[in-house]
Amino acid sequence: MSEERVWTAALAVIGDEILSGRTQDKNVAQLATWLNVQGIRLAEVRIVPDVTERIVEAVNELRASHDYLFTTGGIGPTHDDITVDAIAAAFEVPVIVHPEARAILEDYYRDRPGGLNEARLRMARVPEGAELIANPSSGAPGVRIGNVYILAGVPHIAASMIDALTGTLEGGRPVVSVTVGARAPESEVAELLRETEQAHPGVAIGSYPFFKDGQYGANFVVRSDDGGLARSTAEELARRLAEAGFEPVRGGI
Amino acid sequence: MSEERVWTAALAVIGDEILSGRTQDKNVAQLATWLNVQGIRLAEVRIVPDVTERIVEAVNELRASHDYLFTTGGIGPTHDDITVDAIAAAFEVPVIVHPEARAILEDYYRDRPGGLNEARLRMARVPEGAELIANPSSGAPGVRIGNVYILAGVPHIAASMIDALTGTLEGGRPVVSVTVGARAPESEVAELLRETEQAHPGVAIGSYPFFKDGQYGANFVVRSDDGGLARSTAEELARRLAEAGFEPVRGGI
Repeated sequence: MSEERVWTAALAVIGDEILSGRTQDKNVAQLATWLNVQGIRLAEVRIVPDVTERIVEAVNELRASHDYLFTTGGIGPTHDDITVDAIAAAFEVPVIVHPEARAILEDYYRDRPGGLNEARLRMARVPEGAELIANPSSGAPGVRIGNVYILAGVPHIAASMIDALTGTLEGGRPVVSVTVGARAPESEVAELLRETEQAHPGVAIGSYPFFKDGQYGANFVVRSDDGGLARSTAEELARRLAEAGFEPVRGGI
Repeated sequence: MSEERVWTAALAVIGDEILSGRTQDKNVAQLATWLNVQGIRLAEVRIVPDVTERIVEAVNELRASHDYLFTTGGIGPTHDDITVDAIAAAFEVPVIVHPEARAILEDYYRDRPGGLNEARLRMARVPEGAELIANPSSGAPGVRIGNVYILAGVPHIAASMIDALTGTLEGGRPVVSVTVGARAPESEVAELLRETEQAHPGVAIGSYPFFKDGQYGANFVVRSDDGGLARSTAEELARRLAEAGFEPVRGGI
């Protein structure tokens, strides 16, 4: 990568349901993809259980070592939703009911069965000093405090909160990825890959093998925050693969 | 959970491809599910980039704080496969070529195009003092050193290595999960859930909402390492849901 400042983010996934294997996480991939476009690199993910001390520890370590920290999960209405309390503990501030969040929930539940009951009102609680993150897909908002962005765990709700944040975070140059595929076993082109990467400082080449239609192959992903450099290196890689007898497939297989 | 000793494991997912959003991780869920059956709880996951210092740091923290540490990814033949070197660095031992791994690879590549070239031979490298983990689905074995289990990143290969380890790790009582579903908005039964959990020490109840077929609902997962307690608590929960006017669905929706 270039000498330019690199902006990094971490994600803390809060959820016994992920650690038990019951639920397949989808937020890592969607947050990572969105961060790339904002010019921010997802540099670390931790998945932690619904245990206050473990959340506090992860939040305090990650918010100190990255420009941004996102969390997903644990902000619903039930007893196992302890994210807001844990993050307030991490910041050593009390939990308050946010007036605007309360108004949003009153509006959202006005015509719904059950109305704004005590459990639902839990979703208006935020660490003191926090701001809200819009939730275009259901009532309860996300929460920002300092550099920590508290998002829902349900993937489509998390996605809509992330969308609402587009353009609001300072970042660097987006990372550009160019993929070149080939029906080449990666172990036969390992040296060629290594040489190509070494010849182009600022570029990282990843190799992702697959077995498809009865043939071995791999996609080679050329990444750089210098888009021109990523593209020219990918072109050179394609040319070298062709010279070695492997038909390159631009865009990957 | 009961007073019995709880065995825990951590997983370090090593891979720029996960952090870039390019690849959806599948190893967390399959390892977690398998560990439950072994009586070991997956207590933490970290996803780290292909950077030696970051891998060393995660490995040394996690192997010290859990009974077992698993890693996935970065043990292939290409230049971006640095897991073995990083873990050797974490243990402060040199990397050697394991004679049995070399023999396995010689056998595996004997009749394959390209044979056992230099890149493929990289996959016989292990930290000094390590043992092999069988790989029933492709040639290159996994590696165990101390309480660290180094697995492939490709999910079906990781799965076959995990299978090969079945019954070899000491654990406690398996955690039993019993699911009760209902077409109940979780925010209308939050108090009922909290009370039921509090009335049964040793039981944790998770609430996982969904929106399906135009209706709100949730699955309530009752977990305990005392199987009888998990089942009787789930029965009580189903009864209380029915009394509150929500038809319970045993086994979940």
